[in-house]
Amino acid sequence: MEHYAVIVAGGSGNRMGSEIPKQFLKLAGKPVLMHTLQAFYEAVEGISLILVLPLNHIPFWEELCNNFKFETPHLCVPGGETRGHSVKNGLSKIMAEQALVAIHDGVRPLADKAMISGCFSLASEKGSAVPCIPLSDSLRKKDNNGSHPVDRNGVYAVQTPQCFEIEILRTAYARADFMNYTDDAQLAEAAGFKIHLAEGSRRNLKITTPEDLILAEALIKAGKLSVE
Amino acid sequence: MEHYAVIVAGGSGNRMGSEIPKQFLKLAGKPVLMHTLQAFYEAVEGISLILVLPLNHIPFWEELCNNFKFETPHLCVPGGETRGHSVKNGLSKIMAEQALVAIHDGVRPLADKAMISGCFSLASEKGSAVPCIPLSDSLRKKDNNGSHPVDRNGVYAVQTPQCFEIEILRTAYARADFMNYTDDAQLAEAAGFKIHLAEGSRRNLKITTPEDLILAEALIKAGKLSVE
Repeated sequence: MEHYAVIVAGGSGNRMGSEIPKQFLKLAGKPVLMHTLQAFYEAVEGISLILVLPLNHIPFWEELCNNFKFETPHLCVPGGETRGHSVKNGLSKIMAEQALVAIHDGVRPLADKAMISGCFSLASEKGSAVPCIPLSDSLRKKDNNGSHPVDRNGVYAVQTPQCFEIEILRTAYARADFMNYTDDAQLAEAAGFKIHLAEGSRRNLKITTPEDLILAEALIKAGKLSVE
Repeated sequence: MEHYAVIVAGGSGNRMGSEIPKQFLKLAGKPVLMHTLQAFYEAVEGISLILVLPLNHIPFWEELCNNFKFETPHLCVPGGETRGHSVKNGLSKIMAEQALVAIHDGVRPLADKAMISGCFSLASEKGSAVPCIPLSDSLRKKDNNGSHPVDRNGVYAVQTPQCFEIEILRTAYARADFMNYTDDAQLAEAAGFKIHLAEGSRRNLKITTPEDLILAEALIKAGKLSVE
């Protein structure tokens, strides 16, 4: 079975308060995205990497690859209006009839090998695999009246890579409303497929603020630790 | 108005995979709890600190204070069967008729001054203040059928310090079912009080796994950063 990863890096980085979109910021000596691509390349032998970037970021990315002598093979594909359009563009490059595809946030550079291969292997067995971790904080929801508690019993935070058999994604992304979903699991579910949960990792941070970049750097320096 | 902080450190540290409960583990050169106590001591002039520890941890804590020459004044109070009992024991040491009380997790050593004083000031105005941060991940809930998405729109992760006027806490902790609540906001709400949300901080980690300790250490080393 062929394996693909569609790495989506469409963000413009507003929340970082920086001019450079967060996927290009340096983490432990090289841009965030290089960590992300390499993690998948090392986790799964023979995997094909598809990187989706806003069209106007592609020349900058190519320059970065030159400057950093980044040689991990990957196909660069222009993104679309929404995350959904970007994923769809990435998927359109997959010609294989049968394949397993991981869709992954470009700004999660610390996805570890065990988690990535665990997700692929669950998806090959069940059709889908979505990594989750338990929450450590209580939840509240703002409402017209102020706020109210949300029962967090059994509630998990959803991460990526979300892995699927390609035909599930093809069916899901053929829906007219595909662009309304920011989470592939929800889109696949709307298309009638069952979602199977895999074990996520607390290391698998999504880099959205300057703190997150510091946290990621610390985790890289500390190396691998046993995860709960 | 008198200010108090009840720091609850009842955990036995199972999730850390360590023999030493996590509140005693070393973070940037000294036990986690010393950071926590110091944060409140520095944030609010004249604050009284009440530390609630399991009875059998108190001698160990006192030894640590000697060894680390930790001189931040605090009252040490034995905990109870549940978190609720521990908080209630802590509150029972407050004699003042009027006071503002912060209830805080001992394993959140990075509560920053601005957040602590912001919570006290909102509580002095409104009666309560509960710090929250927006979620960065999607949510799913496990159910009999597998799992289903939880709408995270308007959903916030709840942190501590949760600050209240003492009479709210006295009324709430007089309820027969006080020990069934792990979150003081929910208990106060059950007792009929309105909860007001304050701005939490992404730095304000709850240390529950070995990764969290590394993350906290990194944040301390990186010093203060602008928080989103």
